[in-house]
Amino acid sequence: MDTTNVVLHTVHQAAEAVAHTAEGSGQGITHMMMLLIIQLAIIIIVAKVGGYLSQRFLKMPSVLGELASGMLIGPYALGSKIVLPDFGPVFTEHAGFAASAELYGIATLASIILLFLAGLETDIAAFLRYSVVGSVVGLGGLLTAFVIGDLTAVLWPGNGIHNFMDPAALFLGVISVATSVGITARILAEKRKMASPEGVTILAGAVFDDVFGIVALAIVMGMAKVSMSGGSVNWGEIGIIAAKAIGFFVLVTALGLAFARKITAAIKQFKSKEIMVAICFGLAMLLAGLAEMAGLAMIIGAYIMGLALSRTDLAHEIEEHLEGVNNILVPIFFCVMGMMVDFAAMKPVLLFGAVYSLLAVVSKVAGCGLPAWAMRFNMRGALRIGLGMLPRGEVALIVAGIGLAAGIIDQGTFGVAIMMTVVTTMLAPPLLVKSFNGESGLRKEMAGSSEDVDSIDLEFPTHDITEFLLGRFVRALRNEEFYVNRLHTEQLTYQVRKDDIMFVMIEDGNKLHINAAEEHQTLVRLMLTEELLSLSDLLDATQKMEDLQTMGSGLLANMFC
Amino acid sequence: MDTTNVVLHTVHQAAEAVAHTAEGSGQGITHMMMLLIIQLAIIIIVAKVGGYLSQRFLKMPSVLGELASGMLIGPYALGSKIVLPDFGPVFTEHAGFAASAELYGIATLASIILLFLAGLETDIAAFLRYSVVGSVVGLGGLLTAFVIGDLTAVLWPGNGIHNFMDPAALFLGVISVATSVGITARILAEKRKMASPEGVTILAGAVFDDVFGIVALAIVMGMAKVSMSGGSVNWGEIGIIAAKAIGFFVLVTALGLAFARKITAAIKQFKSKEIMVAICFGLAMLLAGLAEMAGLAMIIGAYIMGLALSRTDLAHEIEEHLEGVNNILVPIFFCVMGMMVDFAAMKPVLLFGAVYSLLAVVSKVAGCGLPAWAMRFNMRGALRIGLGMLPRGEVALIVAGIGLAAGIIDQGTFGVAIMMTVVTTMLAPPLLVKSFNGESGLRKEMAGSSEDVDSIDLEFPTHDITEFLLGRFVRALRNEEFYVNRLHTEQLTYQVRKDDIMFVMIEDGNKLHINAAEEHQTLVRLMLTEELLSLSDLLDATQKMEDLQTMGSGLLANMFC
Repeated sequence: MDTTNVVLHTVHQAAEAVAHTAEGSGQGITHMMMLLIIQLAIIIIVAKVGGYLSQRFLKMPSVLGELASGMLIGPYALGSKIVLPDFGPVFTEHAGFAASAELYGIATLASIILLFLAGLETDIAAFLRYSVVGSVVGLGGLLTAFVIGDLTAVLWPGNGIHNFMDPAALFLGVISVATSVGITARILAEKRKMASPEGVTILAGAVFDDVFGIVALAIVMGMAKVSMSGGSVNWGEIGIIAAKAIGFFVLVTALGLAFARKITAAIKQFKSKEIMVAICFGLAMLLAGLAEMAGLAMIIGAYIMGLALSRTDLAHEIEEHLEGVNNILVPIFFCVMGMMVDFAAMKPVLLFGAVYSLLAVVSKVAGCGLPAWAMRFNMRGALRIGLGMLPRGEVALIVAGIGLAAGIIDQGTFGVAIMMTVVTTMLAPPLLVKSFNGESGLRKEMAGSSEDVDSIDLEFPTHDITEFLLGRFVRALRNEEFYVNRLHTEQLTYQVRKDDIMFVMIEDGNKLHINAAEEHQTLVRLMLTEELLSLSDLLDATQKMEDLQTMGSGLLANMFC
Repeated sequence: MDTTNVVLHTVHQAAEAVAHTAEGSGQGITHMMMLLIIQLAIIIIVAKVGGYLSQRFLKMPSVLGELASGMLIGPYALGSKIVLPDFGPVFTEHAGFAASAELYGIATLASIILLFLAGLETDIAAFLRYSVVGSVVGLGGLLTAFVIGDLTAVLWPGNGIHNFMDPAALFLGVISVATSVGITARILAEKRKMASPEGVTILAGAVFDDVFGIVALAIVMGMAKVSMSGGSVNWGEIGIIAAKAIGFFVLVTALGLAFARKITAAIKQFKSKEIMVAICFGLAMLLAGLAEMAGLAMIIGAYIMGLALSRTDLAHEIEEHLEGVNNILVPIFFCVMGMMVDFAAMKPVLLFGAVYSLLAVVSKVAGCGLPAWAMRFNMRGALRIGLGMLPRGEVALIVAGIGLAAGIIDQGTFGVAIMMTVVTTMLAPPLLVKSFNGESGLRKEMAGSSEDVDSIDLEFPTHDITEFLLGRFVRALRNEEFYVNRLHTEQLTYQVRKDDIMFVMIEDGNKLHINAAEEHQTLVRLMLTEELLSLSDLLDATQKMEDLQTMGSGLLANMFC
């Protein structure tokens, strides 16, 4: 044991010597890299286990567990106590910031990926199709949440914020804006309510919420940056900033959509899908950088590039290829956000955080629910829709992180934002599940339209045949310009949409369930029949082609000649 | 236009203001992150295009194009001329280093992934099976390359290296050690020579080369670190260091292999494959950090963790899930390595570089060829084997990067290492292809054993049926404990091995080619027949199960009731 210590000490001296030859900040790059890799190792293991626990035992989205594990191992909690012999604590503050630049860089990369994928998954057709109901529900929730979030900061006594235009107030407004509909979609899929009127309205509203949320962020970033630079923000100037932000968004998105097919046609020259995907992702990062340079935020550029590519046939290739990156890097992002929660700084603002979180619940339920109620839903339906739009997620966290990094909000306010995200995400699932018990959510006079969701169930001999058919069916649907979106649920689930047709396909072992509203059953059955017939033809051809058994005997016969 | 400038200027001022509030190194974290994302965007696009060009038009591995694009955009070339308005050049030196810590961190992460995957793909069964021929060829090339590489540095006049134990000399030795067999495997697969005696010998030699190369690196890192810390390295001490390095490697690998099944059984409790893969990768990073702390290099730990997991059934899950990460991050690594080449620093060492590269060719051809010749090959066969072992790749680059970051080698020597990698990788393909023209490579007296490689060709009605069968066949082979390794070639190619059976499966549109030596044809045909019969049964069952067409009419019938 003694020699080990001696050697460790020698190694340490060697490392020190090496460190000093590098002309870095006193710590050699080799040492920095070792620390980074050990940090990443701990982060990924703890975050994945935390995510699993919250999914499995709390029936909550994994993001909560990832955040919580970050809080646990952050420099303000256990992190400072994880000490490497001779190297000191693994997680420490770096110039008042909970992560080193190299660790924060990986988290930032993950946030770009997150928003690029969010853009890619946006269903622009639904945006146009459901423009009335979607925009009313989405915009209602957005405006209410923004105003209430901002006003809470202004009216709360003793925090030094007295102005609606104060950058910190603007940030507290915009942080509470973006709904994260993933957990809602999962619950709707599990309860087979995705094709219900409430389900369709929530999903349409979420598309608007996404798009308008990004625009709102663009405006606020512009205002905050001017405010921060000491300029006084008057209404005329706000008009200009808003016009610029909206202009940037609309112009770049329109250009992107207009040239998406040309761009992808050029990218397809590379033949290899790996190269195409990597270049599209490179373009997303490039636009992210441009957006930041234009005074907006990087995630806005990443989202726009995703949006522009969402209608091309590369969209699902990109999604599939980025799945692995998503799986490794995104938990790192959430965990790092958790690490930044400084419990000491939060103590004085706990009450404010509780009120802010509560109002964030109220603002979405009222802001989305009331417009829905005004349209064609009864109170039950309106509540369902409001609760469905309740959870906040990755965008709230990213925006809070941007604010913290830029010094616009302080550690305490950052903690409040995390608290609000956690509260809304935790409250939504149980309330949503409960709200869906009982009668129709449509008003009596509106209830004429069919609301029954029927399930078509097919069973195949083995799981791989089911998978094979489902794969062929998904491809056939995409060829017919259906929007087919894979949900991140435990079972392989696809949401399919085109015009006002909408259904959900769930693979369940060797079974395949297709849930569709009664009015679309005919169409779904027809398409499925067509696919089954073509599969049957294919199997026939394979059987007969040379007869598989003959092929087998042929193979064997050759053995003896 | 004028207002744009004014606004850009205002934004810049705002950014400055923001930057100054962060207590960083004077540049705010927000600005650093923007720069990082723009750097990554440029790197990934340029690297992917470069890789494509080198593959498509030069018929060279993409790594060459990725390296070259890095040289092009590095701070010592065009990089300093890519200037952002108001933000300065995108690529600059950071304290004498061509990459910022946050960019280098991502490259380091990529190098960990590369070596983790290399470990995962190691065929330990082949290691034991071919221990004689493999160890003789692998070890012969390794020792020759190391000694010649080190001596070249010592004997070259005027570089200040006079001692075989000089850390720089040791690094020049170990950099030239590791063969990168990827390009060779591709050529063997294309020329259908993978199952030939030369092919089998090269692939067996490469396994040994990998494992012993990592051990050699461990020893050299230990020696270099002691040397760097001012300690004089005497032979007794070397013995201790070598024993420690080998001890670490053998002990950790043995523990890993012994507990791999227990570890994976524990990890499998998480059910979700995404979580399992992420945790395995986290463990690889953890072991990487431990290896560095123990005075070795991080990639050694990553490789060992891969090796330990290579025999578990998680191995190919991990490979598949990490493909996307590989596709995005690994080109960044190669490009960053290229960026570090300082042309000015290389000028004085160009001649040395040429000689070093040439000797790196000679050392592998002789070091691997001669033992092969002594065993059962004629000169032709020996040359083929030597040329197959010639290319150096990712490990050489990673080791050179470690040496540069630690200050053990200087910019010029780093450039020499890159030059050697490029030269050996470029020379191998044409020479190898040429060498395989002509007669058998076995000596006359040995030529009794069959050497003919036959192709079994099957054709199916559609591409997806071929893929379906191939997928089932691969799974069946893995269940029977065959080692099935997917090669990174343009066509989907699998190398299959168990005991001394070895064959290659190539998917080619709706055709499937299986190349096997004549002596294994019988077995392959039997297994394939079995699989075809079980497929035929499955198709029968699917056809009959309710008859797909009936299922179709059933679906339609339901429409009217």
